[in-house]
Amino acid sequence: MKLLLVGIGTGNREHLTLQAVRALNAADLIMIPRKGPDKADLADLRRAICTEVVTNPATRLVHFDLPTRDPSAAYLDGVDAWHAAIARVWTETMAEHAGPSATVALLVWGDPSLFDSTLRIAARLQPAPEISVIPGITAIQALTAAHAMPFNQLASPFTVTTGRQLSASGWPAGVDTLVVMLDGACAFQTLDPQGVSIWWGAYLGMADEVIRAGPLGETGPVIVADRSAARARHGWIMDVYILRR
Amino acid sequence: MKLLLVGIGTGNREHLTLQAVRALNAADLIMIPRKGPDKADLADLRRAICTEVVTNPATRLVHFDLPTRDPSAAYLDGVDAWHAAIARVWTETMAEHAGPSATVALLVWGDPSLFDSTLRIAARLQPAPEISVIPGITAIQALTAAHAMPFNQLASPFTVTTGRQLSASGWPAGVDTLVVMLDGACAFQTLDPQGVSIWWGAYLGMADEVIRAGPLGETGPVIVADRSAARARHGWIMDVYILRR
Repeated sequence: MKLLLVGIGTGNREHLTLQAVRALNAADLIMIPRKGPDKADLADLRRAICTEVVTNPATRLVHFDLPTRDPSAAYLDGVDAWHAAIARVWTETMAEHAGPSATVALLVWGDPSLFDSTLRIAARLQPAPEISVIPGITAIQALTAAHAMPFNQLASPFTVTTGRQLSASGWPAGVDTLVVMLDGACAFQTLDPQGVSIWWGAYLGMADEVIRAGPLGETGPVIVADRSAARARHGWIMDVYILRR
Repeated sequence: MKLLLVGIGTGNREHLTLQAVRALNAADLIMIPRKGPDKADLADLRRAICTEVVTNPATRLVHFDLPTRDPSAAYLDGVDAWHAAIARVWTETMAEHAGPSATVALLVWGDPSLFDSTLRIAARLQPAPEISVIPGITAIQALTAAHAMPFNQLASPFTVTTGRQLSASGWPAGVDTLVVMLDGACAFQTLDPQGVSIWWGAYLGMADEVIRAGPLGETGPVIVADRSAARARHGWIMDVYILRR
């Protein structure tokens, strides 16, 4: 079994690379997760991408139901059980729809290497498939592109972290630039805003893309309000931001 | 004047996104730098990409001579003067080949936002053009794809830094994963290798891609030797690595 993990970018279908288009057309089977109604837009996007770029008549699409994570479990335990459940569903889906020498593709939001669990879940498969990763444009690149800004100041380091980490540990030592992902709680509110600027974006690359930038003290509350309204309107939100001091 | 900064990925022509293909075809003028003979492969790659994907007969290609950096100047002074010189050459090239309302594109290795100076140089242009950034696959994504590895351990932060910074400041506090770019001197040799692993790659995405991975104590010296031999053979090298402890 060959398993292709194909980064598809962040909602702009044109984020797809020529390599991703070729990989999808090289697959015998493409597995598309069905998610809850909240994130229907994302499942639709995966389908739309396949419809648009898959021209190989031998490539079949199948849908599978993505297990849900137990929100009552401790974070790491919950994630472990969830990943095991997803690996089981993949195994069942592949057994039903593909032979042992098939090439199977999964479309991965962003890049399979950045804050995504697909590689970790794939490592649980038995027998181990031959894994190929096709990189894709990440949300943080869509953010810097939307703001036409560099990640880093000249030759300076930056740290990529999570909202959870930022809330728990504060601003890490030794860096002036933080890229914050997976923040459902606007962790920037826990920081002293003095001298800090924020560049924020949601639905990056998509038709509903929204961006905000400015001094954290002024712009932070605007983002909190806009984020809450946008989330209510869409039923879901994906956002990311950069802080610099 | 509209200026499109188009990320082209890292040497694999298939890293090009559909958005990049569209942007190049929307340009009236594409400016290609001529570099010294050492990096002829890279200039050739830019030309080859344009030949392959630009189908708009109205899009013209022009070459310009990239100024060289004064290696005797202090680092930041040298960079400042160099950027000013590049901005002048761009301005002259655009004045000669494009009208004031033209759309001009530059092909940027990797992503214009990551350890690249194109945005900083563009900010010097007068009058200021309207800048659009098209994100591209970075060398560090080509590295993680080649090793089929995630950047980060589950929900953990990582820091992106330079060889210069790593040599000067050592391993930064608070992170277990370091992504190191722009390291011409194998700065990993300055670290205590105990408990550290390295994932290294050069010419990533290209036909001559080479990768190495293992415990830093064993694999570090192998990389130093292989890197030196590859650099002598090609006349240039571009490489990047991840350290994890």
